[in-house]
Amino acid sequence: MAVGLSEPDEILPVAGIKLASLAAGIKKSGQDDLVVFLFDELATCAATFTQNAFCAAPVTLAKKHLASPQHPRALLINSGNANAGTGEKGMQNAEKSCQWLADALQLSAEQVLPFSTGVIGEQLPMSKLQSGITLITTKLSEDNWLSAATGIMTTDTVAKAVSKTISLDGQKVTISGIAKGSGMICPNMATMLAFIATDANIEADFLQQCLSDIVEDSFNAITVDGDTSTNDACVLVATAVAKNKQLDASSADVETFSKTLNEVCQQLAQAIIRDAEGATKFVTVEVVQAGSKSEAKNVAYTVAHSPLVKTALYASDPNWGRILAAVGRAGIEQLDVSGVNIFLDDVCIVQGGGVDADYTEERGQKVMDQSEIKITIELGRGDCSALIWTSDLSHEYVRINSEYRS
Amino acid sequence: MAVGLSEPDEILPVAGIKLASLAAGIKKSGQDDLVVFLFDELATCAATFTQNAFCAAPVTLAKKHLASPQHPRALLINSGNANAGTGEKGMQNAEKSCQWLADALQLSAEQVLPFSTGVIGEQLPMSKLQSGITLITTKLSEDNWLSAATGIMTTDTVAKAVSKTISLDGQKVTISGIAKGSGMICPNMATMLAFIATDANIEADFLQQCLSDIVEDSFNAITVDGDTSTNDACVLVATAVAKNKQLDASSADVETFSKTLNEVCQQLAQAIIRDAEGATKFVTVEVVQAGSKSEAKNVAYTVAHSPLVKTALYASDPNWGRILAAVGRAGIEQLDVSGVNIFLDDVCIVQGGGVDADYTEERGQKVMDQSEIKITIELGRGDCSALIWTSDLSHEYVRINSEYRS
Repeated sequence: MAVGLSEPDEILPVAGIKLASLAAGIKKSGQDDLVVFLFDELATCAATFTQNAFCAAPVTLAKKHLASPQHPRALLINSGNANAGTGEKGMQNAEKSCQWLADALQLSAEQVLPFSTGVIGEQLPMSKLQSGITLITTKLSEDNWLSAATGIMTTDTVAKAVSKTISLDGQKVTISGIAKGSGMICPNMATMLAFIATDANIEADFLQQCLSDIVEDSFNAITVDGDTSTNDACVLVATAVAKNKQLDASSADVETFSKTLNEVCQQLAQAIIRDAEGATKFVTVEVVQAGSKSEAKNVAYTVAHSPLVKTALYASDPNWGRILAAVGRAGIEQLDVSGVNIFLDDVCIVQGGGVDADYTEERGQKVMDQSEIKITIELGRGDCSALIWTSDLSHEYVRINSEYRS
Repeated sequence: MAVGLSEPDEILPVAGIKLASLAAGIKKSGQDDLVVFLFDELATCAATFTQNAFCAAPVTLAKKHLASPQHPRALLINSGNANAGTGEKGMQNAEKSCQWLADALQLSAEQVLPFSTGVIGEQLPMSKLQSGITLITTKLSEDNWLSAATGIMTTDTVAKAVSKTISLDGQKVTISGIAKGSGMICPNMATMLAFIATDANIEADFLQQCLSDIVEDSFNAITVDGDTSTNDACVLVATAVAKNKQLDASSADVETFSKTLNEVCQQLAQAIIRDAEGATKFVTVEVVQAGSKSEAKNVAYTVAHSPLVKTALYASDPNWGRILAAVGRAGIEQLDVSGVNIFLDDVCIVQGGGVDADYTEERGQKVMDQSEIKITIELGRGDCSALIWTSDLSHEYVRINSEYRS
């Protein structure tokens, strides 16, 4: 029941990237659960990871491999099992998997970055994984983006992928990305798994900076349930096949590239929320006139995480008192409530801390009946703002998460 | 579907307190929705209130009346309407209500403390309230505690009341209390409405200190949904009728009194969680070996607020990975995960940051099948601890809160 999101029809291949997806038998459902990316020798790679202290074995290992002097060449991704909370054995399994893929592709293990997503606390089925890795390396091709988008899914109902082309230094450049995730979604890292690639030639430090900046307002600006995953990662690969003059922070084309990368990341991040577990609404929460960026984000997340606001959204109930109560408990020092205004789309519901004189239940109801709603909160304290995306809390969310392992 | 909680059978009257409850027509259901307490002239009164910035008109007015030089003599409580987010008119209505009760009881308006609970954002039905106030003052009696406990209910399914007797300075002293609340429950104040009375003779400053201390580990140690209400208040009245020598911080009997008051507050607070909206489990979360009290509380609330932990509890699913992920995202600086142990009752699930060697799904399942569960988290960082109570997240919670106003 994704909100305003359909299957992607075309994902453009990226020169310098081959990939494949198959069912290795990790998921009980028999659906695809193993994906491999292989990129050209000249490719540059940037990544951001979860800040959850209990990060999964593959996260720890991917960070270690990224820090090694060897250039990363491949991504090994499995769904259906998170390899998190699995201790020393989980780490050995992650290392072994990287070695298997490295052997098959004639790389060193340090050139493989591992990623896992799925149930926490169970060991990987290693023999299935080994057979899968052997088979998948025979299937690598430039045209497998769509099946890869499907292969990384867990509770997702729709594959998430975005492609854009731009011109850099006179060269046509492609940016394609896939993402997964619909539960255990909250910011403070690159939320969930996202893999983005471009054939542009981009300087390594600039690539990382670009990703880190953009993640802040895309993958780090979404929440389903406030629960930060142990496995989240976002990877950006630039293969340099497009032969544009190497892009760095001082290049004339910086704006063009970062604007488009931002669009790709925001569309993928929004796709995660549109397909959030049990979602029936796609909700934008914007807080403006805040005293600081962190104050704005804090108010936005307090509203977005409130189970009472989320159930009112599910019910299409313009119960604005719950929004007001959430703003009031967000812990802003000395909030002058008489300066607070709240809007549902363009309908003013709260003016100067109380119900707006022109507000009618009918006008609120009309907005709430929509599947896409924007809540705007003016704090009257300053010039800072924050914008995040979230979903509602439905029976389906409870059903999915109470039946997840059964 | 309250967990381990039945209707209170007896609530002991408190000498010096008369009370009454009736249906004034504020609730559509026709159930009792108006309660009045009248206490003796010598009575001393302490109170704590919500810290929500959007506090309701009656909260603001009760604070103002408490600060006036006049001794409080009466509580005027309505359920079915919160009189919150109602602006200047809401404040005028609260003032008018206090004046009506004051006139009927020959008091000044400043001697009446008003309390409201129910839907946010609607004006009080003033003519119904006026008739109700006129009628209720003719019904005041020492024996109406049980009907008062019912009269303050909103989505509660069971009335909540506790009585204890102790001996102070050779005099028999009674402490009786009632509370309401099952949604929009989170700490950082005296959560929800609770009214406690004793006939003990207690010095005013000490009474307030005693209440503030005890609220911290009772009403401020519970959460249903993390949503702090706009109307929460906890009131403690000491009528001094029992004729014990006035109790203050230096009295020999301090321990006896505060221990018993603590028991009353904890039982009422737990009753709120046992009757939490849609609750099927009563869950204790204790965090020990924390570096500070706030660190311990932060971890406890992060676990208790996690929708994923709460849906796993609802499903009786020993999905301990979700508890571990919640601990990991609680934002503890430099958490050494290898020092973290987690228990379900006495079953160790996580040892040194990974699954315990002796853990089996069967042992975890046995604990999760219970309706009362304790989660203990050892952080291995210090000597501080925190203990809170919470409920699970069920279909019934979503149903109640999506249908609340319909």
